Amino acid sequence: MKVAYLGPKGTFSEEAALRFFPPNGTELMMCDGIVDVLEAVAEQEADKGIVPIENAIEGTITMTTDGLINYDVWIEGEAILPIALHLLTVEGADIDDIEEIWSIGPALAQCRDFTRKLQAKTKHFSSTANAAESLVKANNKGAGAIASELAAKTFGLEIAKRNIQDFEGNSTRFLIVTNKKPEVPETSKSMLLITPGEDRPGLLAIILNVFSSLDINLSWIESRPTKKKLGTYRFFIEAQMGVQEVSMQKAITILRTYGHDVRVLGSFDTKKL
Amino acid sequence: MKVAYLGPKGTFSEEAALRFFPPNGTELMMCDGIVDVLEAVAEQEADKGIVPIENAIEGTITMTTDGLINYDVWIEGEAILPIALHLLTVEGADIDDIEEIWSIGPALAQCRDFTRKLQAKTKHFSSTANAAESLVKANNKGAGAIASELAAKTFGLEIAKRNIQDFEGNSTRFLIVTNKKPEVPETSKSMLLITPGEDRPGLLAIILNVFSSLDINLSWIESRPTKKKLGTYRFFIEAQMGVQEVSMQKAITILRTYGHDVRVLGSFDTKKL
Repeated sequence: MKVAYLGPKGTFSEEAALRFFPPNGTELMMCDGIVDVLEAVAEQEADKGIVPIENAIEGTITMTTDGLINYDVWIEGEAILPIALHLLTVEGADIDDIEEIWSIGPALAQCRDFTRKLQAKTKHFSSTANAAESLVKANNKGAGAIASELAAKTFGLEIAKRNIQDFEGNSTRFLIVTNKKPEVPETSKSMLLITPGEDRPGLLAIILNVFSSLDINLSWIESRPTKKKLGTYRFFIEAQMGVQEVSMQKAITILRTYGHDVRVLGSFDTKKL
Repeated sequence: MKVAYLGPKGTFSEEAALRFFPPNGTELMMCDGIVDVLEAVAEQEADKGIVPIENAIEGTITMTTDGLINYDVWIEGEAILPIALHLLTVEGADIDDIEEIWSIGPALAQCRDFTRKLQAKTKHFSSTANAAESLVKANNKGAGAIASELAAKTFGLEIAKRNIQDFEGNSTRFLIVTNKKPEVPETSKSMLLITPGEDRPGLLAIILNVFSSLDINLSWIESRPTKKKLGTYRFFIEAQMGVQEVSMQKAITILRTYGHDVRVLGSFDTKKL
């Protein structure tokens, strides 16, 4: 089985892929971007893909929501990965000499207090792993990278300080996508993409009331711009009920009768990594 | 009047500041990050600040929503800036020789089709202006920066190709913040931050129904993680009604009676730039 994930080596996506899929029979396929992962799955270059959808601190990863709009994939699973960010340095570096912190924007934002105390400048890279690898290549003792334990292992860096993020209990939610829609998914959650047929006052309230009138609990709602003009949105709605349930089918029928476009993005269970 | 904005020189934030505030009597104060802008205003180092809150393509700018949670500022205005992204190159460069595109992540994402057609690699910088300035310093004819017309002027770059973004009609919404809450703001919009007193099924539907029962139209809803655990949120709600209106006061009273924490973030009008 070929599994597409967001590279480079040493990212949290790789860690999630390694923990979620069985080591035997899984071939990991590294991609440059989240969109490339979804494209690889949609075009059947990979059997499955794993993409981050939400981080407990940063919120929704909009590259993923927007990619789900554009590519025809089916969400068949969800995995929650605890996130710990560490300060990585090259061998022999002293934390007191660190003048620059390298990482991706969201990781820099999550470790803002730490970076401030160190009075270090920040430098942006395309991923935590890319920052770690660049540090090794530069062999720079005056800089540190914010990245994962897996990145430290992958690139042979030292963990100068553990758990430097501002808030405890950080985790990221990943979705497992495939190009094959299972016949009858017997699952506990589902995700819908609702594109309203018209823009009218109280639109979201009306949509949400359909679910509450059928006793369907929603665990996640995300509005994304339609990219046509400011102020018009489509909605990602995650329900704590699989699409096999009669109530979910009723909700979908009612929403479509109202004139909204409803796409079932998937039906799945949650796995903690 | 001192106005804090997100630097460096040549960003869209600078353009918005230049267009929104009168040139006479305005002193622009450049900040390194969105959070620094809000902090400068909250700590009265600046009289006002201007921060991006939403882009028509990328959606909500979460650094701003999260900053509004943490800093005691008052939103007194809103400005909509049309966004045009161009490919900037150093003098004498040929677009056919461009092998790398430099910019900030969201701008690279917005020009994905263009970058693909050019078969160019992407390189991440902390802002569009930072990418443009780096290009000038490197005097690199094999790279191009995705940035604004203001950045081209500021750094003396050529516009090799105009309007390279995938979608037309892009614009960014900015908020104008101050540390002085006006006595009786007579305005047409307002923004609330609602932190639910409890997490229960149908919570958002119940909150939204309060507004629709009072005939208050909502123009923007954004859920942000509480940073305590995955799946718990607070809500930014923008109403098309100023806080001076009786109906808005009723909505706030009802929501507080339900046990939710309601913070009025501001009351304002919209200005098109």
